[in-house]
Amino acid sequence: MPAAIRPDLPLLYLKRGEDARLRGGHLWVFSNEVDTRRSPLTAFAPGDACRIADAAGEPLGAGYVNPASLIAARIVARETGAALDAALLQQRLQRALELRRRLYAEPWYRLLYGESDGVPGLTLDRFGDAIVAQATTAGIERLKPEVEAAVRAVLAPRAMFWKNDAGIRALEHLPLYAGLAFGEPATTVEVREAGLRFVIDPLGGQKTGWFYDQRANRDRFVRHVAGTRVLDVFCYLGGWGLRAAHAGAHGVLCVDTSQPALQRLRQAARDNGLDARVEVAQGDAFAVLRDLRAARERFDVAVVDPPAFVKRRKDLAEGRLAYRRVNAAVLRLLAPEGVLVSCSCSHHLSRDDLLAAIQAGARDAGRTLQVLESLQQGPDHPVHPAIPETAYLKGFLCRVVE
Amino acid sequence: MPAAIRPDLPLLYLKRGEDARLRGGHLWVFSNEVDTRRSPLTAFAPGDACRIADAAGEPLGAGYVNPASLIAARIVARETGAALDAALLQQRLQRALELRRRLYAEPWYRLLYGESDGVPGLTLDRFGDAIVAQATTAGIERLKPEVEAAVRAVLAPRAMFWKNDAGIRALEHLPLYAGLAFGEPATTVEVREAGLRFVIDPLGGQKTGWFYDQRANRDRFVRHVAGTRVLDVFCYLGGWGLRAAHAGAHGVLCVDTSQPALQRLRQAARDNGLDARVEVAQGDAFAVLRDLRAARERFDVAVVDPPAFVKRRKDLAEGRLAYRRVNAAVLRLLAPEGVLVSCSCSHHLSRDDLLAAIQAGARDAGRTLQVLESLQQGPDHPVHPAIPETAYLKGFLCRVVE
Repeated sequence: MPAAIRPDLPLLYLKRGEDARLRGGHLWVFSNEVDTRRSPLTAFAPGDACRIADAAGEPLGAGYVNPASLIAARIVARETGAALDAALLQQRLQRALELRRRLYAEPWYRLLYGESDGVPGLTLDRFGDAIVAQATTAGIERLKPEVEAAVRAVLAPRAMFWKNDAGIRALEHLPLYAGLAFGEPATTVEVREAGLRFVIDPLGGQKTGWFYDQRANRDRFVRHVAGTRVLDVFCYLGGWGLRAAHAGAHGVLCVDTSQPALQRLRQAARDNGLDARVEVAQGDAFAVLRDLRAARERFDVAVVDPPAFVKRRKDLAEGRLAYRRVNAAVLRLLAPEGVLVSCSCSHHLSRDDLLAAIQAGARDAGRTLQVLESLQQGPDHPVHPAIPETAYLKGFLCRVVE
Repeated sequence: MPAAIRPDLPLLYLKRGEDARLRGGHLWVFSNEVDTRRSPLTAFAPGDACRIADAAGEPLGAGYVNPASLIAARIVARETGAALDAALLQQRLQRALELRRRLYAEPWYRLLYGESDGVPGLTLDRFGDAIVAQATTAGIERLKPEVEAAVRAVLAPRAMFWKNDAGIRALEHLPLYAGLAFGEPATTVEVREAGLRFVIDPLGGQKTGWFYDQRANRDRFVRHVAGTRVLDVFCYLGGWGLRAAHAGAHGVLCVDTSQPALQRLRQAARDNGLDARVEVAQGDAFAVLRDLRAARERFDVAVVDPPAFVKRRKDLAEGRLAYRRVNAAVLRLLAPEGVLVSCSCSHHLSRDDLLAAIQAGARDAGRTLQVLESLQQGPDHPVHPAIPETAYLKGFLCRVVE
């Protein structure tokens, strides 16, 4: 057990029997697990550093508190002698960077992924010499200067941005905003993937601007697209669709509701010399799919990569039905021997739930499927083996076999 | 619903309410779901073709029966006009081949994977111009001549072997044997993977002789081995270990109980010019791991790819403990920042069970892990989306982060 946690940090005591999950490796303390008579949460300010101890007083680690959040504390260190400070941040960032350098030839990747990389509440995406950061907890919000210093020390990027507008921040009572952290405000932020270039918007795009989590899945998808017609539903900036055009698809139709995203997609198609093979359709996915069916359009390969349909657990039944419906609608447009890539990033929808929704949609559409690949987030989004919440992305690459 | 199922086939009626799973896409009829008063199973011989109908008499498909098995019937066709005959076999084989040709540059792969490829009970592995086949049901056992004819018609291989010694055949009351189906008996069967060559034993090896299901996982594993020392536990013919040596590991230790497997592994190491970097240790894995720890040996990367520890559901608790113990033992040998690949092919152990066992082993060994990759069988072993039993292989590629 850790011997060298800083003894000057205030103690947060757990109730009896509430230490098993943490001993199993989890990093979160829920508010109802705290012995508030012994260590009142009201004594802590949001983001205060703390030590966490079991009912017998044995220390379990050092972390930080948010008295106003359902997740009352997060462990950041078990065996080190320090709380989350500049030195520890820099060491964790260096460790995260070493993994990405081993995995990727070029500096485009998720550089640090929260709990899984030992820094609960912080996400860093690297775009060459620009960094887009996201803080989702009060503990990290308070440490922004230390985070910026660690990023400067380890990478010295040309610019760093805070993209702190994720809805999840409301759970920590944090304001939503996006802005430059340091560097050149006019920095053009570009992502390179498999030889393509996309200009992204570090302050106004979805999430941190690019979905690195799907890159390895796109690598598998493009093995199936040469000489085909491809449909990319919920296309955003065209990560799937343009990769398909680049890999030899003879025609790609990209569908999204967002006009700004489609404008960027068209620009990226021109920049990469792919515009002759890429079309866009702006509108609600279900409506566009209905129109395509009415027009008897046919595709050989289709991608369904929607935003989370299930945002809260109570929406699960409705969300399952939405996944089933969209997959059925797309499968009705697929040619014989067609290929479907179907994904979900809904935390509350399990991998088995998604497969059941795809299979139900296939039966609705009268199609029989084989699953060729089970997809998940790439290795720059590592999963914490004791925290199932860190494994959020699931998908399947399927072939129609009748 | 199918209109053209051969009307001359005898009918197998389901009890009321037992059609939902089949309508959802599953292909198996369990014996307790059959209305045996209306269609006595004793009227069928093992492997007889049949039509399957719900309690209202509506046909659900055509298939074959084994009255002596827990799985009393398997559906082979829903929309075709025929039962499983030579023509249908040939069409399914052709369809399976098209997928593999799209996926692989060279003819080494699982060519046909049972239910997922539309031929319940049959597995075909391709090794260049040799085929190793496995029949696991009475229905396929009776169709061996038709299977051989379909293979000749589609591929005309130099030799085909039946490797019908899987224990699972006992469930269908089939004898265990292995032998030449047709062609040259002295055929040397070779597998090529990522530039390496291995001679395999089509009649005396494990399963069909080679584990194609792990190939894509080995591709991900070798990204982590350059300049490292690698441990390959339960190494069999050295698929992982020799791939590591070939990809730049400076030393590899391969561990197995099977002396014949290790002899083949050493021969393959010599054949591929890798013998200077490959060592073997023969013995029980747990004993060898204990000895390595006593000798304070250290490895940078380790693979744990055991035979199924959980063969029956009632062995699940014991099996979980065995996975936990072997992973803890290996993690104790790993250097800081080390990489662990840990797999299970036990049907009864879920993906979550395996991850929990690895994580428990990590806590036992005092190590903290990140999961970089979630592993499963390759796309030449497609999963049937309505038959969870077809997704049997699970694994994780993890990094030690303290």
